[in-house]
Amino acid sequence: MSLTDKFDGVTVATKASVYFDGKCVSHGIVLADGTKKSVGVILPATLTFNTGAPEIMEGVAGSCRVRLKGESEWKGYGAGESFKVPANSSFDIEVAGEPYHYVCHFG
Amino acid sequence: MSLTDKFDGVTVATKASVYFDGKCVSHGIVLADGTKKSVGVILPATLTFNTGAPEIMEGVAGSCRVRLKGESEWKGYGAGESFKVPANSSFDIEVAGEPYHYVCHFG
Repeated sequence: MSLTDKFDGVTVATKASVYFDGKCVSHGIVLADGTKKSVGVILPATLTFNTGAPEIMEGVAGSCRVRLKGESEWKGYGAGESFKVPANSSFDIEVAGEPYHYVCHFG
Repeated sequence: MSLTDKFDGVTVATKASVYFDGKCVSHGIVLADGTKKSVGVILPATLTFNTGAPEIMEGVAGSCRVRLKGESEWKGYGAGESFKVPANSSFDIEVAGEPYHYVCHFG
């Protein structure tokens, strides 16, 4: 199981992005090569996120269930597991019990 | 008004610290010189935090009201303003309306 527990040599924005009344809080980071990512937390809730750029969501703690747009099946993901979301799409995510911590990789 | 909008060249932990059922979410960072700080958000709530090391809380967005241990007066702080908390002490913080975004400087 691979898991990104930290990023070195990055720029981090001090102001967070707060979504859904705080059910999701993330901080944007920029790697040394200019790649943008975000590190965030989703609190227990069922939420729908829209994507612009394609995203890879990497779990770093906790777990979630996810249903991609156009799919009927929910799939579970834990720490060290990732799921891909296409560009200009959406996904439902359900977090129960403990918060789900993630890295969002864009593009 | 000075305000730290980002940190460059830092290590950021991908897993957040979640306090008070998510009313406070922070990510730890380590500067190139080894100094540890955290960047976080407090959602609308009235909370009591305990300190180990002394802390300087720097607001980067939103505002709060704060009452330090042993004081009766609440004081207001906004973006670009800071307040100091002694070691092994505590403070009450009230956030209303919009989230309060902060940098916590230790020591």
